[in-house]
Amino acid sequence: MDSRIDKIFNPSSIAIIGASERQETVGYAVLNNLLTMGFEGEVYPINPKRDTILGHKAFPTLSSVNQKIDLAVIATPAQTVPDLIRECGKLGIQSAIIITSGFAEIGEDGAKLQAEIEQLRIEYKMRIIGPNCLGVINPWIGLNASFAGKMPSPGKVGFISQSGALCTSILDWAISNNVGFSNFVSIGSMMDIEFADLIDYFNDDEKTESIILYVESIKKPEEFIKAARRFTSRRPIFAIKSGRFEEGSKAAASHTGALAGSDDVYDAALEKAGIIRVKRVKDLINVAQSLSMQDIPQGNRLCILTNAGGPGVIATDAVIERGGRLATLTDKTMESLNQALPSFWSHGNPVDVLGDARAERYEKAIDICIQDENTDALMIIFTPQAMSEPVQTSRAVSRIAKRYKKPIFTSWMGAEYVEEGVKMLLKYGIPSYQTPEQAIDAFSFMYKYLQLNDNLKKGEAEGEVTAIKVSAETIKTYKDLIESIKKEGKRDFLNEVETKSLMEEYKIPTTKTKLATTEAEAAQIAESIGYPVVLKIQSPQILHKTDAGGVMLSLKNAEQVQEAFRKIVQNAKEYNSEASIEGVTVQKMVRLSGGVELLIGLKKDPVWGPAIVFGSGGVNVELLQDTAISLLPINKFFASHLIEKTKVFKLLQGYRGQEGANLDYLRDILVNFAQLVIDFPEIAEIDINPLLIKGNEAIALDARIIV
Amino acid sequence: MDSRIDKIFNPSSIAIIGASERQETVGYAVLNNLLTMGFEGEVYPINPKRDTILGHKAFPTLSSVNQKIDLAVIATPAQTVPDLIRECGKLGIQSAIIITSGFAEIGEDGAKLQAEIEQLRIEYKMRIIGPNCLGVINPWIGLNASFAGKMPSPGKVGFISQSGALCTSILDWAISNNVGFSNFVSIGSMMDIEFADLIDYFNDDEKTESIILYVESIKKPEEFIKAARRFTSRRPIFAIKSGRFEEGSKAAASHTGALAGSDDVYDAALEKAGIIRVKRVKDLINVAQSLSMQDIPQGNRLCILTNAGGPGVIATDAVIERGGRLATLTDKTMESLNQALPSFWSHGNPVDVLGDARAERYEKAIDICIQDENTDALMIIFTPQAMSEPVQTSRAVSRIAKRYKKPIFTSWMGAEYVEEGVKMLLKYGIPSYQTPEQAIDAFSFMYKYLQLNDNLKKGEAEGEVTAIKVSAETIKTYKDLIESIKKEGKRDFLNEVETKSLMEEYKIPTTKTKLATTEAEAAQIAESIGYPVVLKIQSPQILHKTDAGGVMLSLKNAEQVQEAFRKIVQNAKEYNSEASIEGVTVQKMVRLSGGVELLIGLKKDPVWGPAIVFGSGGVNVELLQDTAISLLPINKFFASHLIEKTKVFKLLQGYRGQEGANLDYLRDILVNFAQLVIDFPEIAEIDINPLLIKGNEAIALDARIIV
Repeated sequence: MDSRIDKIFNPSSIAIIGASERQETVGYAVLNNLLTMGFEGEVYPINPKRDTILGHKAFPTLSSVNQKIDLAVIATPAQTVPDLIRECGKLGIQSAIIITSGFAEIGEDGAKLQAEIEQLRIEYKMRIIGPNCLGVINPWIGLNASFAGKMPSPGKVGFISQSGALCTSILDWAISNNVGFSNFVSIGSMMDIEFADLIDYFNDDEKTESIILYVESIKKPEEFIKAARRFTSRRPIFAIKSGRFEEGSKAAASHTGALAGSDDVYDAALEKAGIIRVKRVKDLINVAQSLSMQDIPQGNRLCILTNAGGPGVIATDAVIERGGRLATLTDKTMESLNQALPSFWSHGNPVDVLGDARAERYEKAIDICIQDENTDALMIIFTPQAMSEPVQTSRAVSRIAKRYKKPIFTSWMGAEYVEEGVKMLLKYGIPSYQTPEQAIDAFSFMYKYLQLNDNLKKGEAEGEVTAIKVSAETIKTYKDLIESIKKEGKRDFLNEVETKSLMEEYKIPTTKTKLATTEAEAAQIAESIGYPVVLKIQSPQILHKTDAGGVMLSLKNAEQVQEAFRKIVQNAKEYNSEASIEGVTVQKMVRLSGGVELLIGLKKDPVWGPAIVFGSGGVNVELLQDTAISLLPINKFFASHLIEKTKVFKLLQGYRGQEGANLDYLRDILVNFAQLVIDFPEIAEIDINPLLIKGNEAIALDARIIV
Repeated sequence: MDSRIDKIFNPSSIAIIGASERQETVGYAVLNNLLTMGFEGEVYPINPKRDTILGHKAFPTLSSVNQKIDLAVIATPAQTVPDLIRECGKLGIQSAIIITSGFAEIGEDGAKLQAEIEQLRIEYKMRIIGPNCLGVINPWIGLNASFAGKMPSPGKVGFISQSGALCTSILDWAISNNVGFSNFVSIGSMMDIEFADLIDYFNDDEKTESIILYVESIKKPEEFIKAARRFTSRRPIFAIKSGRFEEGSKAAASHTGALAGSDDVYDAALEKAGIIRVKRVKDLINVAQSLSMQDIPQGNRLCILTNAGGPGVIATDAVIERGGRLATLTDKTMESLNQALPSFWSHGNPVDVLGDARAERYEKAIDICIQDENTDALMIIFTPQAMSEPVQTSRAVSRIAKRYKKPIFTSWMGAEYVEEGVKMLLKYGIPSYQTPEQAIDAFSFMYKYLQLNDNLKKGEAEGEVTAIKVSAETIKTYKDLIESIKKEGKRDFLNEVETKSLMEEYKIPTTKTKLATTEAEAAQIAESIGYPVVLKIQSPQILHKTDAGGVMLSLKNAEQVQEAFRKIVQNAKEYNSEASIEGVTVQKMVRLSGGVELLIGLKKDPVWGPAIVFGSGGVNVELLQDTAISLLPINKFFASHLIEKTKVFKLLQGYRGQEGANLDYLRDILVNFAQLVIDFPEIAEIDINPLLIKGNEAIALDARIIV
């Protein structure tokens, strides 16, 4: 644990620079929060113009305090901050929160100031949150080092947000709903401390049993994934990432580029980190409530209790839609319910305790169902009816919840009529939602974490990647080739012969291809490899050969080959009169009748780096958009997982009597492809499409490597 | 307008049978509601044991009232109801609500009672809501003829629910959120009056500007669609239909059956009715709020105003995800905003008025944006910040909302801090949601209605179906054939030759197919139609020929044909030793290189009747699940719409240089297929899969007709 970060959350003494008595200032708000919300350490207001502030002795400068200061909170104008940081450094204060805005986010001048601060920070080995943030809150010690005027209850959820506005909204909401936090952080511009640092810190903080993130951008992606995965291997993280559709319609040179947007790569990155992504603020709020109040369910089998049929059906729909299951109640449970309930009860799950159920009947039924060994969690629905008792029913639920560890989710459907009942539930730490679907959202997000963590653990247990090792010499040959292509500047891709030979080095099977520079040579090559053959244009200026009329298939004899040669050259010239034509490649026409067409691609993300894209290939590529993405590296387990996420997996398993593919072979191809990508960071994009596979045979019919 | 239904909602005088002073009874609750919530007509409590009830003169029987009674509300035990209905009938009371439960829903005895009532109802020409319902509420005249103890405000949303529990929940919620209703109906068991009747009634009721439905089942499907469409041609209906996953894993004989579940047919039915289906109770609540408070937006271009960047991005994601658009602000708007806002404003949509925005700045910006001609609706986001003013900002919004018709949606993000502000918004009829996404849900459901209604109007304008007319004689021939097949009982499907000849009558192109009973005959037929050919088994016991090894493709000469004949017969015998083999069919092997494989099917739904299923065919059928469904009849416009809803539409348009299909020809095929289905109600299921199409050529390679 970095003690400098710990001093931000658990300081014994705090200096607040810019402390003020003027109520509209941030300096007032922070000081007031530090003084009035239960913090028991020392607080030193720093303000050269005043002797006392809010009844506390004020100091003109940091150095005039003459006491140990753990944390400096800075709320003075931007241009004053560098000197203050220097002063902190000289005094040995190594922890700071810079609330002030007006740095990199406002343009060049601000960015210069920020760079200056960062340099001082490094020089004095400080750790800083901000600038441009709200501050932090640690409810466990009554610390509110922020200008948000509220204090949530101490709890087990850590919250980190890149949006200050969302912080204040969520805080307000959390307090009204009795949601407790272990720490609450507005992370600001992340000049120094970013998500990875805080997640690492929370990992060592046993109070924090789960984390909620609002993410707009990540600065240290590798560290982020490592820190998050360390945390998620034991406890869940849920994140919302906004800006999902920013990219819009940027042109991409490859299929892969068009298929995999940066948001899809974010999905892959969060998955690798073991983080469950939620898409709506309401989902974040809903899952936070459940996380703050109870344990994670141990499985996806839900027992629904209700006093009305309709909402029971609605809840059932929601469970099934989200991949959960209705628990099959044990015979013992059924017998007990038969004895406890009127004979008209639903005799199954959902357990309909009927419209005239008072609290007592609810309590009996819940007590029976919560002990059912086939049930991982309970969902209790309450609707206002003539005889129903919202508050007493809540009390009954809370009595049972105290006795068992099994998670309970509730929906008291209504408003004024159920208000007191809902308050009672929240007071006793039982999550409650306006509609059954929202309760089931929270439940399903929680078990999705379980499933993901399980899967990642299996993959991680498999250990190292077992890809092919290509000799350093061979790698160097191709690196030299790429360098020379770049130097020459005529083209930005490997030609077909180069592409295929590089792929062969990595055991990705291709069709043998030779370059012909004359009609006669083309016919000669064709005779030697056997008919039918395929001819393709080779020109540094032509990447998309089909578009240029530069591909001819199924050529069955020398005459056709010669004619195709002429035609292709002519088409290419018409397509681009300035294209220099190096020749026409000749290769065997491969027909793997009934084979499955796949796409394997490389997508380079500016944040997350290289990602492998796998899915349906051929004509189906853009039609189906059936792809899955994984960050690198991948071992064979994760290769399997990638394959299983696509629809084409059905075909690969053998489908309606068709022969499938040797999946182990396909996994090898994927792992070796990933190795190629890792060995050649020079490569910008790769498309193998289609890779045809059937049984033990596979062949890449077309491929593109862009450098 | 049916005046008997009108008297349920607008009675001058009401008899409440079973009126009581015992507070726990339904009879007490209804009477109390009728007396205390503003109803100004006459109320006659009927109870033979009391002279007065709640200070009102009580009558021993209906006939002892001796005054005109418009509406009878019955809350006495089930067995008393038939006599009461008879008495109503004799007295000329033609409108009743039966609140009592204990009829068809409890089993046979109850069903008998209910049948008796229904007969009396018909005899006396009465209209009845219920039994087993909560009752009805018409807030405009203070009428609460239900046992729900609350009265919502008068408004413009009609609400009809099949779940009483949902009624009470929504009512409670609506009152807290200032959502007004034109009428509020718990429809119960729908013995008589069902959705169609009420929608028709609301159609003539100008107060009702939109309808919200909670549907579990529909009793009169044709009437429902007609009534709903009449309404939706002018005003929207939104519905939630529960029980989406009931069907589970029933086996289906055809692809079509497996692809199209009954819930998908519900989707198609609601679409045909012009109804927008929502999937979550929260969506229903959210859209109800907007419907009750303002007009439908005239398009999908939204302008977002916010005082924080993060929530603006979240809202943008939500708009794009739901098919809306961010409005491109006019130059005039941009100029005005530049003058009205600090220079750091976002200079685009979302319009970020910045964190220090007070109410005044919000008001200026809103006033500018609402006048923007490229904007169909406004979404205003408020987050709690140091200087922000939740209540004053709400007041500013309400001032502007009064002056313009353009819809405004809001999200005041938080709880306690924004509570008063939200109340103010709701008071002035401005919908407000906890999160931006929920506001945008409501917005998008509303313009989805616009889009659907637009589309239906275009289709309806095209008018009659122009399918092929097959002669009565031909139809009779096939009806006789089907009847004889059913009588014979050996098989439940048409054989290949019969299937293809019937399809040819309806201009659905197939391959000419002849039956051979010997090897020699097979070879002879093959010689006459030309190679390559396909051979298929014909046996009344074998429907799935491929599974039986009963299909051989690409036979190139007489020798291969004869061998295939022997092999097929042998396979069929091994597959089913008791199968009687009528012979082997011979047809030309069709290769439409690059053609698109389609599926056209008939699904018969127990509620909605015949539906046409269209989508990707061949090996892709179950892999892609790429199908669209429409109820019959369909004209060419709706056939187009059906085609456009599938992914395979991309291929049909011509895709990446491949030739597409003549879509007009495909529309003809679909319309003629639909005619076949309509002409032959005897047919249970049809699968045409694949139908191969390319340019002007199409051919059904395989088809199955089950009778």
